[in-house]
Amino acid sequence: MLSNTLTRRIEWGDCDPAGIVFNPNFFSFFDHSVTMLYEAAGLPKQEMVARYGIAGCPLVATNAQFKAPCRYGDEIEIVSSIAEIRKSSFDIVHALTKDGALCVEVRETRVWTRKDPETGELQSTPIPTDVVARFRGK
Amino acid sequence: MLSNTLTRRIEWGDCDPAGIVFNPNFFSFFDHSVTMLYEAAGLPKQEMVARYGIAGCPLVATNAQFKAPCRYGDEIEIVSSIAEIRKSSFDIVHALTKDGALCVEVRETRVWTRKDPETGELQSTPIPTDVVARFRGK
Amino acid sequence: MLSNTLTRRIEWGDCDPAGIVFNPNFFSFFDHSVTMLYEAAGLPKQEMVARYGIAGCPLVATNAQFKAPCRYGDEIEIVSSIAEIRKSSFDIVHALTKDGALCVEVRETRVWTRKDPETGELQSTPIPTDVVARFRGK
Amino acid sequence: MLSNTLTRRIEWGDCDPAGIVFNPNFFSFFDHSVTMLYEAAGLPKQEMVARYGIAGCPLVATNAQFKAPCRYGDEIEIVSSIAEIRKSSFDIVHALTKDGALCVEVRETRVWTRKDPETGELQSTPIPTDVVARFRGK
Repeated sequence: MLSNTLTRRIEWGDCDPAGIVFNPNFFSFFDHSVTMLYEAAGLPKQEMVARYGIAGCPLVATNAQFKAPCRYGDEIEIVSSIAEIRKSSFDIVHALTKDGALCVEVRETRVWTRKDPETGELQSTPIPTDVVARFRGK
Repeated sequence: MLSNTLTRRIEWGDCDPAGIVFNPNFFSFFDHSVTMLYEAAGLPKQEMVARYGIAGCPLVATNAQFKAPCRYGDEIEIVSSIAEIRKSSFDIVHALTKDGALCVEVRETRVWTRKDPETGELQSTPIPTDVVARFRGK
Repeated sequence: MLSNTLTRRIEWGDCDPAGIVFNPNFFSFFDHSVTMLYEAAGLPKQEMVARYGIAGCPLVATNAQFKAPCRYGDEIEIVSSIAEIRKSSFDIVHALTKDGALCVEVRETRVWTRKDPETGELQSTPIPTDVVARFRGK
Repeated sequence: MLSNTLTRRIEWGDCDPAGIVFNPNFFSFFDHSVTMLYEAAGLPKQEMVARYGIAGCPLVATNAQFKAPCRYGDEIEIVSSIAEIRKSSFDIVHALTKDGALCVEVRETRVWTRKDPETGELQSTPIPTDVVARFRGK
């Protein structure tokens, strides 16, 4: 399955008065990591939207476990991988580590979504075969 | 069980280029809602930390379902409630609605945590009886 | 001149490891205050864009003085006022106070901007007379 | 004078519904760039605070000009330099460019600040000679 690794450095502004990463910021890191995962599949976000006529891949569920805090100056690594592909949705898992130790673990679900050309409603639609192939890392 | 309701207005800066709330920002709203829940229990965050000699109540798990997007200008309501109390951890559920329609639903787990006076290590410790009573809404 | 007052409470996530508001967050507060100033003039942001066929009023300059820090839990007040109106740009001043004491003072310049229908380039364009009247508070 | 260059990629979450960087986020970039400037001087933020017994170098004024917007995916460069050193305060200038074109220009003032050991009040204090030497790039 497709996988990508991102490294980043915890910035001062990522942290709260307890001196640790304010938990919502982890979700910003993961959102960025998803973007980079798509790029690794040859699908930069805006090209993907244009090429397949989709509205995007909104997050419909996320399940996170926080094992250890991160602090200003920490160099972290995020490994993001496609975990499961269904007809019109898929799961991504993220593992955020610091010096090899697991800090945050996430499994999230995203839906391949188009806008109905007549009603303007957002609706799930099957993931195209070539996207599935890219997500499978082939 | 203890419950509190918070209303807020989605700001321009809460939203992303798709025109909807950038999902990490929902977690900021929920974090703030937890703070207000503690206050509703008569436990402002810093007083709670000082009174019970704890390091805080770090988030160890969160499980969110996103049902409908929110947009700039939306008036939202967040109902946060204590859902379960265990020996040294507790669950909070959040329901974020817009005009009565459910947009985001979350269940999160937090741990009553102290810093070991000798080693400085963070460790879970039993929730005091009077805090349990406040969390039960008594 | 048009003026509007906004109150907000400093949230935990607004603050950094020094325990004070992370300075970029003040600019989020001011951006929101500008939005509310437009609304006070009867010009909600998206209606304003639609009604006048503009691309928006991008910030081109800001000049801020930080006099005193703000901390988690502080109740602050922001008074935002139109300070000067020119042909196609205008200045807004913000005064952020806590218990009446000035914490941050800002003067910013925004430009009434349209997108050239042929080239797609953003360009300044004269502020309509009725907007000027609203900005003058008449 | 001391100078440092930082590159970063504009993330989806940095941008607002207009599709451009939400202006407060530029100030987060500059704050991070200041941190990296200190590190380039051999003064990681927390070491600097510990070594000189200071409370930090709070921002007291910033003056920014926004020349051109940045968008999701843009690779930007920020050059941050010490511009002036006074007895107990100093100025930093930032130039944020995209493909060599200037997008944002900032001049900010920071104060070398200690906490009065008796009253706990924050007060400016002279910048140590060796810090001045480092800031001069010597």
